[in-house]
This record gives sequence, structure tokens and C-alpha cells, in this order.
Amino acid sequence: MQHIFEEHESEVRGYCRSFPAVFASAKGAWMTDTEGRRYLDFFCGAGVLNYGHNPDRLKQALMAYLMRDGITHTLDMYSEAKGQFIERFQQLVLQPRGLSYKLQFPGPTGTNAVEAALKLARKVTGREQVVSFTNAFHGMSLGSLAVTGNSFKRAGAGVPLNHATFMPFDGYMGSDTDTLDYFESVLADNGSGTQHPAAVILETVQAEGGVNVASADWLRRLREITQRHGIVLIVDDIQVGCGRTGGFFSFEEASIVPDIVTLSKSLSGYGLPLALVLIKPELDQWTPGEHNGTFRGHCPAFVTATAALEYWRDTQLQEAVASKATLVQTRLQRMLQQHGIKGTVRGRGLIQGVEFADAGLAQRVSKACFEAGLVIETAGINDQVLKLLPSLTIREGELAQGLDIIDQGLQQALDDGLRRAA
Amino acid sequence: MQHIFEEHESEVRGYCRSFPAVFASAKGAWMTDTEGRRYLDFFCGAGVLNYGHNPDRLKQALMAYLMRDGITHTLDMYSEAKGQFIERFQQLVLQPRGLSYKLQFPGPTGTNAVEAALKLARKVTGREQVVSFTNAFHGMSLGSLAVTGNSFKRAGAGVPLNHATFMPFDGYMGSDTDTLDYFESVLADNGSGTQHPAAVILETVQAEGGVNVASADWLRRLREITQRHGIVLIVDDIQVGCGRTGGFFSFEEASIVPDIVTLSKSLSGYGLPLALVLIKPELDQWTPGEHNGTFRGHCPAFVTATAALEYWRDTQLQEAVASKATLVQTRLQRMLQQHGIKGTVRGRGLIQGVEFADAGLAQRVSKACFEAGLVIETAGINDQVLKLLPSLTIREGELAQGLDIIDQGLQQALDDGLRRAA
Amino acid sequence: MQHIFEEHESEVRGYCRSFPAVFASAKGAWMTDTEGRRYLDFFCGAGVLNYGHNPDRLKQALMAYLMRDGITHTLDMYSEAKGQFIERFQQLVLQPRGLSYKLQFPGPTGTNAVEAALKLARKVTGREQVVSFTNAFHGMSLGSLAVTGNSFKRAGAGVPLNHATFMPFDGYMGSDTDTLDYFESVLADNGSGTQHPAAVILETVQAEGGVNVASADWLRRLREITQRHGIVLIVDDIQVGCGRTGGFFSFEEASIVPDIVTLSKSLSGYGLPLALVLIKPELDQWTPGEHNGTFRGHCPAFVTATAALEYWRDTQLQEAVASKATLVQTRLQRMLQQHGIKGTVRGRGLIQGVEFADAGLAQRVSKACFEAGLVIETAGINDQVLKLLPSLTIREGELAQGLDIIDQGLQQALDDGLRRAA
Amino acid sequence: MQHIFEEHESEVRGYCRSFPAVFASAKGAWMTDTEGRRYLDFFCGAGVLNYGHNPDRLKQALMAYLMRDGITHTLDMYSEAKGQFIERFQQLVLQPRGLSYKLQFPGPTGTNAVEAALKLARKVTGREQVVSFTNAFHGMSLGSLAVTGNSFKRAGAGVPLNHATFMPFDGYMGSDTDTLDYFESVLADNGSGTQHPAAVILETVQAEGGVNVASADWLRRLREITQRHGIVLIVDDIQVGCGRTGGFFSFEEASIVPDIVTLSKSLSGYGLPLALVLIKPELDQWTPGEHNGTFRGHCPAFVTATAALEYWRDTQLQEAVASKATLVQTRLQRMLQQHGIKGTVRGRGLIQGVEFADAGLAQRVSKACFEAGLVIETAGINDQVLKLLPSLTIREGELAQGLDIIDQGLQQALDDGLRRAA
Repeated sequence: MQHIFEEHESEVRGYCRSFPAVFASAKGAWMTDTEGRRYLDFFCGAGVLNYGHNPDRLKQALMAYLMRDGITHTLDMYSEAKGQFIERFQQLVLQPRGLSYKLQFPGPTGTNAVEAALKLARKVTGREQVVSFTNAFHGMSLGSLAVTGNSFKRAGAGVPLNHATFMPFDGYMGSDTDTLDYFESVLADNGSGTQHPAAVILETVQAEGGVNVASADWLRRLREITQRHGIVLIVDDIQVGCGRTGGFFSFEEASIVPDIVTLSKSLSGYGLPLALVLIKPELDQWTPGEHNGTFRGHCPAFVTATAALEYWRDTQLQEAVASKATLVQTRLQRMLQQHGIKGTVRGRGLIQGVEFADAGLAQRVSKACFEAGLVIETAGINDQVLKLLPSLTIREGELAQGLDIIDQGLQQALDDGLRRAA
Repeated sequence: MQHIFEEHESEVRGYCRSFPAVFASAKGAWMTDTEGRRYLDFFCGAGVLNYGHNPDRLKQALMAYLMRDGITHTLDMYSEAKGQFIERFQQLVLQPRGLSYKLQFPGPTGTNAVEAALKLARKVTGREQVVSFTNAFHGMSLGSLAVTGNSFKRAGAGVPLNHATFMPFDGYMGSDTDTLDYFESVLADNGSGTQHPAAVILETVQAEGGVNVASADWLRRLREITQRHGIVLIVDDIQVGCGRTGGFFSFEEASIVPDIVTLSKSLSGYGLPLALVLIKPELDQWTPGEHNGTFRGHCPAFVTATAALEYWRDTQLQEAVASKATLVQTRLQRMLQQHGIKGTVRGRGLIQGVEFADAGLAQRVSKACFEAGLVIETAGINDQVLKLLPSLTIREGELAQGLDIIDQGLQQALDDGLRRAA
Repeated sequence: MQHIFEEHESEVRGYCRSFPAVFASAKGAWMTDTEGRRYLDFFCGAGVLNYGHNPDRLKQALMAYLMRDGITHTLDMYSEAKGQFIERFQQLVLQPRGLSYKLQFPGPTGTNAVEAALKLARKVTGREQVVSFTNAFHGMSLGSLAVTGNSFKRAGAGVPLNHATFMPFDGYMGSDTDTLDYFESVLADNGSGTQHPAAVILETVQAEGGVNVASADWLRRLREITQRHGIVLIVDDIQVGCGRTGGFFSFEEASIVPDIVTLSKSLSGYGLPLALVLIKPELDQWTPGEHNGTFRGHCPAFVTATAALEYWRDTQLQEAVASKATLVQTRLQRMLQQHGIKGTVRGRGLIQGVEFADAGLAQRVSKACFEAGLVIETAGINDQVLKLLPSLTIREGELAQGLDIIDQGLQQALDDGLRRAA
Repeated sequence: MQHIFEEHESEVRGYCRSFPAVFASAKGAWMTDTEGRRYLDFFCGAGVLNYGHNPDRLKQALMAYLMRDGITHTLDMYSEAKGQFIERFQQLVLQPRGLSYKLQFPGPTGTNAVEAALKLARKVTGREQVVSFTNAFHGMSLGSLAVTGNSFKRAGAGVPLNHATFMPFDGYMGSDTDTLDYFESVLADNGSGTQHPAAVILETVQAEGGVNVASADWLRRLREITQRHGIVLIVDDIQVGCGRTGGFFSFEEASIVPDIVTLSKSLSGYGLPLALVLIKPELDQWTPGEHNGTFRGHCPAFVTATAALEYWRDTQLQEAVASKATLVQTRLQRMLQQHGIKGTVRGRGLIQGVEFADAGLAQRVSKACFEAGLVIETAGINDQVLKLLPSLTIREGELAQGLDIIDQGLQQALDDGLRRAA
């Protein structure tokens, strides 16, 4: 079937080149291709499948809804499915965490949520500039791309990307320098050339950017600085929210409360497109219809999203993530030692990465793993980081199995490297 | 249940203010709210539901796919569901029309498709400016918003929107002036101040802009001018493609072949988010991953989209649209006469509008209709146009019923107007 | 001496390529090169020398000032020389015309005056967009270049030029269409995509753009439209002010009062750099130092500018311009007839142009004239217009002499053309 | 006479508010107002009068030129006066320093020179972004303003200023951090969000920015980085060139060769507007007329500029600057000690500044000095620096006299401060 894609699909297609199988079905941590071959999934659709593929609780809710001809598409009119989601989100997510946010459902993609967040921050402050960080990734439409660091993606715009200023992310200037010192100087200095910003936008763990983790202290200081200077703090939790780092929100651990939060990817829990912008009530200064879009009321996604919230009834999932995270980190550290490879293991919860000193190694490992039946991606501007993104609900045995494959893949990539060098 | 939305949903919500019901289920041309009240739908989710709500053929295909745990989310990896859609789209849409396009699946919203199209046109030509038309509507993310005419939406950007030049749409300078004369002068004159554009983007029928119809002659001349000047012609068929004007594409009637076409809304046929960019093979100069997004491979939407293509096996649907269009136009004309109201009826296929000389009338009619159980929207920069967008598969009896409600709504709005004036 | 320039001066040098002599001295209407050859001047340094080269009255004032060590440079501190200029400008220019303007002296170039005017208009209105016209020329720094039509000059920016919208100048759409109809539609339509502008900037006669003359009616309507819509009207009188069209200001004839006027070129009367922005008092909302520059207080230029104002004590100069203008126009018309050439004569006062149907002819005539001892330039985006810009104080005999040279140059250019064709 | 200015001159006027006298004549280091009061000049028109007011050698050359009706204005046609300047500039400035540059004469202001330099750097590299430094000052037209740090001036633009990235100047992050480390990281990292720049532009001593001095080591490293990354290095020597720091160019001491150099202010030596862009021959890729302007050939300025070059026949001036600089620095240091004030003295050659810990002190000193007959300005974003900019040719006695006045002014400002506090 691959010839169909090669003949008719645009050259822009990407992941299919790294993982050249035609997938047909999937369940839990496993994907199956049209030839019946099974793959363990350590990628989870770039963080969309935190609860695994086609989880039964969600599937049942979705099928029941479709069966009874629940309304599917309502733009942003009221629907029963949306009402139920909002209600449960209040009960299971916001209230227990003492958070008070208004909910905006923009177009059902992460980039649309970011566009909405940036618009609102600009409107509320009357300012234009937005501060983003080195190696940030926020999306591909022009507003989001302007705050994304990757120069290859930026060049794709075909027009200059303005109204964004990049500051060094935590750790960018070495471990001795708190990069927020520079940010504070620039803010305090009317001659710095940097316009007072409307907002700061960041991922607490930069996923695409190379699994770069902001420390809790750094996040707290950033919250304090932005508060003091009247700058809207936007946490883009699209990839590392919905439990990826342990808590529902990735910023919980630092005990900060952002002004705006963007969510998408794992929000529907079933791979159905859905996005959400959380807005502090006092910032909800939208005029009706000021930001719109067609698919703001995609009810099947609300149905599965509501079912997925049941994972947050108790702390079981969060605890499981913590214990699996330890397992992953320990094992990765050991691999580096055993194979005598220079590298760094970093991450939070079930987003973990290994940055290899040998820049090409991560890609060779990813390739070897795929051949051995494990889907695992690389990250970082030079694909120098092997990124582990298993589902949060993966069984410990499956997790160990995947780590074994990585271990072997690493050995194979090293052997290949030696062979090639010889 | 409305209080949930009023308390917790952002002020940005819009359509729910015009149609304040909480919808629960829907079938064919009918929507039902939580109180069991039924509404005839002449709005179709802004053109998303060309085949009506929850059409059975699509529903069956979707439920079967979910039941067997067909893979849901694959980013842009290959999937069986995508392969089948591509194949059928070739067979039933492109080949019969002699069209040769590569397919790009961007993020599943119209604005994302437009962003992709603009990026590609800029890349291929190495130019930045894009020509758009007065009262155009192409989306809300910054790239698409820059080519959208509505000043309220534009102001929402919070930053200047550049690299777009607006030209007068067909008819904008009165019936005596061919607006393309001006466009040609500007293109030919190196002193005009207007940069040679990468692309021209347009809707053949401007829906949001007020049901403004470009004539076939004008479209042909525009195609000829853009070809001669090496400008990429992008037809944004998001709202009026997928059969809305009769043919699958709205530009078929003018016998032109755009360089790029964007589709979304009714593409999945079931209200599931999906978008598609059609690209002439020689323009498919994307580098892998140059434009990406999470939800490029949302398989349930491919499944329903494939099932929806079966409507295009023969010309039955196209013929039905033509005959219903005549019915609608005739009836609307008659209403104007009978009520002695000044106004213009215009449209193509099953997008029809009445622009009233009395600017507030359309909104009063819409309100009266909703109270009588008909969902119908207004359009145009001052909401001066009543826009009819029934499903293509609506029964003739239902269509007549809806037109009756409009007729009464018109009477009521006029009576109210008189009462208020008195 | 030419080798010095060819070796050491940048390739950007331009006019020296059309008029390759090394000039040493000049007086009245005549320039003399280092070889002693004399040239009659119908170009006047692009409108800088309205009163001829080194006019004695100004020369004496200047030398006396230098002799007594009058202060030369004061930034924008107060100086006696500036005070005297301001006083006389009030008495001889503003008061007699019933005009009330505040005076701003920006950096001493036209482009700096335009930059200041645009900044102020944007500040006062809080809007960003500025409307300019096809074939406008306002300067080379980025702000001025953005409102300049010439695409070759614009490309020189190396960055996109934004916040400017071009409208068709008077006559651009043929003699049947009032181009302001289109401008008014766009202003009235919130869906036009054209942001409500801060200002409209224009030359009443476009000099570089090809001697395009706006009619008095068109100017009056433009003044009325801008007033009604709260748009700042800026007349750029840098090239055609200071008497070039007859009155001191080019807009006097249309009896309009712009909100802001820019002057430079002939303002000092002696070729010394000086620029002036006239601002309606209610628009003078500058904060001290908000726009600055080093050479705002160049006293020698104030001294000659004050002396030059004496030309405006009575109406003698204005009358002389009118009678010379008639002479020039009559003669040019006759030449076209006698040589049987298709072309248009147009202009106001002593800026007159001939647009030839044969696009290359103007340049050939200019070249032939220079060889015969007359300096005369071309204009228009394709250099298709021969532009006559003699000094206002030229003697009638000299004027006739120059016209004779043009007559012969025309004959020669036609003969050359025929020879080349044969 | 002050009422004339107050009534008729725009509110934008600035320096006249700090130094409210009406100046009439000037000679050497002294200015005289209309009341006959004399002022010692430690400001020199912001660096325009390096050779003092109306120096006799230049005056004589200028008067002789005017007397014999030397041509004044030639646009960029060849003139004898320009030819002579170019020749002497080669002989006395470029050749002795082993420098090879092409000369471009843009419009006669610093901002115009900067606009030309930026355009050329963008053209040559095909890139758009320009790196500038915190507290940089390069001019007021939109291109130059975009690379200027001062937020008040930037806000004056009324439009966003783009295509500029600010980096920390030498010393900005404290004495322990080499700010070029950050710049290098950003350049090396394709995910940094900072586009690879066309150029870096800087002043080696930031004058307006607060007399911030870049060290020779830092400059050398910057030259090395820009060379390695193919970035055009532009030194803006408008304020600190022409001998201000000792050598003719301020970058001589660091033994670096910039790709482009801008000069203006003291270039004509007599306060006549003139500007010059020096371009490495291989970068002189201008197309004829690509950047133009009216006053590119202002011959009186060429005449005085040529006469001024005689100061550079030998090293006398440079040596005098060095010894006067020592005198100034020693004396300023002593003042701080004697008055027991916290502050820093910094500068190079005859641009010296004192940054006081008490932010308002510099302005109070400047005011007290003016009352005592000394013109001296403040600098820095909060006017926290007292800036000494005496002429290079000032007599040692005059220099001492001025320093005495500062000493007393300091005492008075301190006394006033105490009184106010009491």
C-alpha cells in the first residue's frame, strides 16, 4: 500500500519516513501494521496517547454516543457533551488543585490554542512582543511559529516572524548562570532594545527541543518576575500536560499558577483532535467571536475527554508514573555506564531523554529499535536526543521490554558505528 | 445546563448566543436539544454537514472501525485508513475531473490548510506578498487572518498583519467595472507600490463575507492573469467545496484549475476535523516535516471521509443540488416581492443569501426563525445578509418547511420593526 | 579627475553616469565643469535650486554670517539665525496665506521630514497604516521607502516594507474613473481588509513618478474624505513646494489646507541641506526629543533660507512662473506636433514633462541634450518621461535656448532611432 | 527672542530646554548668546565640533569656495570639491592605516548612513536580521531606530520595529561574564530562535547609551566571531570617530577592520551636514541609484571636510587627545573622592563620563554647570551619566576651567540635594 502514499501524498510527510510501516490497528501500548507485525509504542503519537491506544473505557463511551446519534458538530453552540466535560473538568481537575480558570475551546489543534493564548495576552496588555525561549516549540501557524526556535521550521514561514524575543531557557548558559538574571536586566533597562512583553510562553519540559527540563526554582522565579512586571505567563502544556510529568499539569510540582494554560494532544484521550485554553477569569476579556474556528465543538472528543478524566479521580495514575519514571531513569543511566557511552539522562515523569555526546547516535538507535519492533523518536535541534514517551498506562513488563530493545538497539548502533569506522 | 457554560466557558463563545439551546442529538436535517425540542438546520455547522447530521453510511463505517480497534492516531505515519481515502479520492474525485494533485494533510482545521498553502506558495515563488480580496475569510491564525478582510477579526491579532494586499472582489466597484482591470494595472506597473505577489487566494463564493459570488468569466480571467504573471492561484474551497455549489469543487463550473486547493469542513462528512491541501505536483516542493502538526493522521475522519466519497460515484447529488437551488432562489425572490422588501438574492447551489436594504432585518429574521425552530445564520460585515446553508441531502419537503419558516420569520420581523417604529 | 570617482566611490553613484562631467562652479542657470564647458541647467539638482545656482542675495547673507563667526551648529538649541527664519517664515509665508502651523526642523533631508511626519500622524491617531499612491516617491530610509512606489527602490530595503497601503493616484484608472471612489469604498467597508489609516501622504504633482498631476478637484475631494474619516493629510511638498508650481505651496491652487506639510530641497535656496515639517497646532503632540537628529540646527542654511524668503515679498516670482510655464507647455506641444510624435505634455508651473509613447525616447533625448550642453532628466518608472525643471528665476532667453536644445535633441534622437532601425 | 520659538516651534524641541539661551556666535571652545554671555562648550554639538567652533583653516577654505561661486549642489554628480575630498581622504586617512574602502555619500545625516549600511549588509548577505546591542543609538528613521535600544525613542515609531535582535553589550552581564559567550551560543544553535544575522552593528563607545566602552579584547573577539559566521561587521563611528577617542577611527586601537564604517557629525569639521559610508570593496554590490537622496553632493561640506583632514597629517592631534584624556580622567576620579560620591568614571580619549550612583545627580550637575557658563550634557537611559565631550583642540587651560566648573557644579548639586532632603 506504500506506493499510494509515495505517488499521491505530498513530500512534506515526515514520520512515515522514520517508521515506514502501514498501521492498521492498535491497542494499549501496541500498534499493528497491515502485515500483522506488532510494535511496542514508546512515542505515543508525540504525546497524544497518554492513556494508550483505544482505551476501553473511552471506546465504550464514544461508541455509545455515536450509536444514539449524539450530536457531532455544533461549532461553539452549547452541547450536552461539552457541558458534561466542563462540569467534570471542574470537579476532577480544577477544583482539587484550587485553580480557577475560564475554558476556551479554540480550533482542535495545539497551534490554534497557542494562537488564541497569544492573541488574548496581547489584547489584555495592549502590548505586542512575546518572550519565548531557546529551543521552544509551539506550533506551525504563523503566530505560534514566531515563538518557536527551530530555524528550519521558521524558514518555512516564507515571511519574517516578528513580535517575538527569545531568552535563554533554564540551563542554556551553563549550570553556573541563572538565565533569568539576563531576562531581569533586560526588563529593568529601558535601553535594552527589548520591548516590554505582553507575555512569556514556555513549556516546562521542552519536548521537541530536546527534553530540556526547567527546574522548579527557575519556574517559581519566572512566575515571580512576570507577576512583578505585569507580564502574562502562558504555560504551553500541550505535550507535557495531561499527566505526562506525573501531575495533571506539568507546573503543579513547582506550585505556580500560570495566567493562561494551553492543552491539546492527550486531552481527548483517544487521539481525537481537541484543544483547550485555560484563562484566569480576570483575563477573559474576549469579545464574542473575536477568535473563532469551525471545529470548536467536536462532541465525540468531548465524550472521550470526559471519560478520560476518570483517570484523575484518585492519585493512582500519578503514583504509577512516578514509579515508572524511576525505573526508566535508572535503566537508562545503567545503559550509559554499561556501554561506556558519554551522555546525559534527563526528564520528568514519563518524558525522558538521553542526549548522546555522539550526535548521530540517537537516530541510529531509533532506527535499530524500529527494526526490532519499538517505535521511539529523537528530539533536539540535531536529533541528538533519544526521547522516551511511553503511555502512562503501560504495563511494567512492557516498559521493561521496550527498555531491553533500546539496550540492544544501542549495542547495535555502536557496533554499526564501529563497523563503519573500520 | 446553560449555567455551566455561562459560569465556566470563556466570553469568546459566539454562536451559542444566537442559538441558545443545549443540543443533544441530531439526524439528517434535524437537531434536538436536551429538552427534546427539534430544530430544522439551515446552517449545517457553517458548511460542515453537507451530507446532514450523522448520515448512516458514514456512521456504520466509523463504528465498525472503532469496534475493531482500527488505529486512531498516527501523526503522519502511514495508516490503512489514510491509504484507502487517498485511493478513493483519486478514483472518485480527481481522475474523473482530469485533475492531478498531490495531497497534503495538515492540522485538521481550515486555517491550518490555508497556512500550509500560503507557506508553500511563498516557498515556491520566493516572494512574500499574497493578494486576497475585499471581504475574504480564510481563518483565525495569524497567517490566515492576514488575508481575511474583517477588521474586527483582524484587530484581534494584537499585532500588525502584513504581507497581504487586498484587491476588490468581483462586483466591488459596481457592475460596470471589471475589478481585475485594476489588478492588472497594478501588476504591470513597477511603480505601483504593490509587490509582485506569491499567490492570489480566494473563495469563489465568499460565504462569511456576505454570499458574494464571483462570476465564471471573472474567475477565468483571474486564472489567466495569475498564470501569465507566474502567481500561484489558491482556491479556498473550505466552505463552498465538497458539493456545496453543485460540483465537488466550486471552481468546476468555471473550468479553471487552481494551483492549490484547500478543503476542510465537509471533507470528513461527519463533523470530524479533517483538512486537505491539494497541490499541483510541480509545486510540491516541501521538505519533509517543513510544515507539521499533531493531528495529521486522525483515522476516524479518514474512515468517514472515504465513506462520504461514495456520494460522488454518480451525478445524483449534483443534480439534486441544482434543482433544490432553483427552488430556494425562486422562493426567496417571491418572498421579497410578496413582502415588498428591497433586497438581493444571490448564491450558487445550496449557498444562497438575501441581502436586505434594511441592514438590521437579516438578524431579526434569524432570531424569529430560531424561535420557530429553524437554525439559520446571517453573513456579511454588518450581518446584513441572511445566509441559507441547508444540507445537500435535505428532503424537498424539509426544504419547503424551512422556507416557510423564513417567510413567516420575515413577516414577524417586519411587524416587529413596525411596532418598534410606532 | 573622473578616475578618482571610478576607483574610490561606491557603485551606487547614479546621476554622474547620465551627466559625466566634473562640475566646478555654477551661477544662475549655468553650471561649469573643470574643463570650462558650460551647461544650461534644466534639472536644478532635482528641484533644489529653484532660485538658480548661488544667487547673490543669499550668497551675501551667507558670507556675512560666516565672516562674523555666526554660530554654525547648535543641534536644536535656540539660535539667532533660526529665530529670524521662523519669524520671516511666519510673516512672508504663513500669515499671508492664513495658515497656522507649528514648525519642526528634523534632520536636514526630505526623507527625515517624511519620517517625522509619519511618526507624528501615527502617534496622534494611534493607528499604524498609511495610505500612499501609485508611483509615489517619498524617500529612501525605511519609513519613507515604505510609502514609495518604485519596486526597484523598495527591493533595496532588504526587508519587507509594511504599514503602507497603495491607492490609485488621480488618473490611474483612466479618465472615466475617479480613483477616490475606490478609496471611499474601502474606507467605508469594515470587511475591506484595509486598516483604517493614520494618514494619507501624497505629492500634488508626482515628480519622480513621471510628472503626474493631481487635479484641484481630486485634491479637494481627498481633503474632504480625510477630514470626514479623521485621517491626517500629509502633503509632501519637498520637490514641488517653494514655488515650483507657482505658489509657495503646491496645494494653494486647490485651496486646501493639509494637516502636515513637508518641505526641503529648495528651502535653504542655496543647496544647503535643510528640512521643515509644518504641523497643525492641535497635532503638535510630540514629547520633547521624541524625534531628534544631529543637524537640526544648521545655521548657515537658516541664513540663506531667510534671505530666500524675500522672493515671496510680492507676487512677481509667482507671475513669472506662470508665464514661463505657458511658454514651456506651448513649445513642448508644438514640438510633438512638428516632429509628429505621440506623447503627452503635462505639469504645473515649472515642472513639466513629456511622456512619449516610445518608451526609450526620453532617455535618448536627455543624452542628446547633455551633449549639446543642457542638463535635463527623465522620470517615470520606465524613464519614459522627459522632465523639465528649470530654475524659477531663469531668464526667458535662457529658457528659449534650452527649449531649442530639446527640440534639436528630439530630432537627433529620432534620427538615431531611425538609423538604428535601418 | 525665546518667545518666537515657544510660540512657533514644535514641542519636539529638546536641547533648548536644558540650555535655554539663544546662541549667536561661536569660536573655538566658546559659544556666545544674543545677550553677549559666553559659554565654554563641553558638548560640541553632540560630537559634531571635534575641531571646535568655526576653525579658521576651514573657514578660510569655505569662504574662498563660496566667493568664487564654486558649485554648491550636484546631487551625486561629480564635482571638483568631492574629488578633492576623496583624494585627500585616501592619502591622509585610509592609506596610512592600510585600509581599503569604497566611499558612499548618502544623505548628509548619520541616520541616513546607517540606513545605507544596513541595506547593503542585507543585500550582500540575503539575510534580514541585524544584531545590535543593549543601549545602542543609531538614529531616528525607521531602519536605524530598529537597532536603537532606547524604548522612548522606539515607541515614537508608531509601528513595530522588526528585523533587529539585541545582544548584551560588553559588561552588561557583570564583569565576570563575557557577553559574547551568549552571542556565540545563539549563533551556533539552530534552535535558538534567533535568525542568522546579516550584520552586527555597534558603537565601540556607546555615547548616548551612557559612555559604555567596549574593550579591545571584546572587539577583537566580536570581529573574529562575525568573520567566522559570515556576518557583516558595521562600526557606527558617527559620534566617536574623527578623532574623538584618539585615532581617526575608534576601532584602530583594537586593530580590527570592520566591513562597513559609518561617519558623519565631525566629518565636515564645520558643522555642515555630511555623511559617509565606508565599504569593503568586495561588499560594494550596490546597483546604481539603489539608495539615493538629494543632498549627497553638498560641496561646501566637502570643502571644509578636506581642510579638516589636514589635522591628520601628523600625530599631533592624537597625542594631544591622549594627554587631555588623562587630565580629564584623573580630575574626575579625584572629584569623586574629594566629594565622597559613589560613581564610575569611564571613557576613551575625549569622550568621558561619570556614572553616579545617585541617578538624578548628573542632571543637577549639568544644570548647575550651565548656570556657571559651561555646556555639558547627560547620557544613559536615565540620564544618570555626566558626559564630557570637549573639542579635541581645546586649550589645556580651557579644559581645566571647565573641569573647575564641573567641580563646583558637583558641590552645588550636592548642597541642593542636602537642602532638599532637609
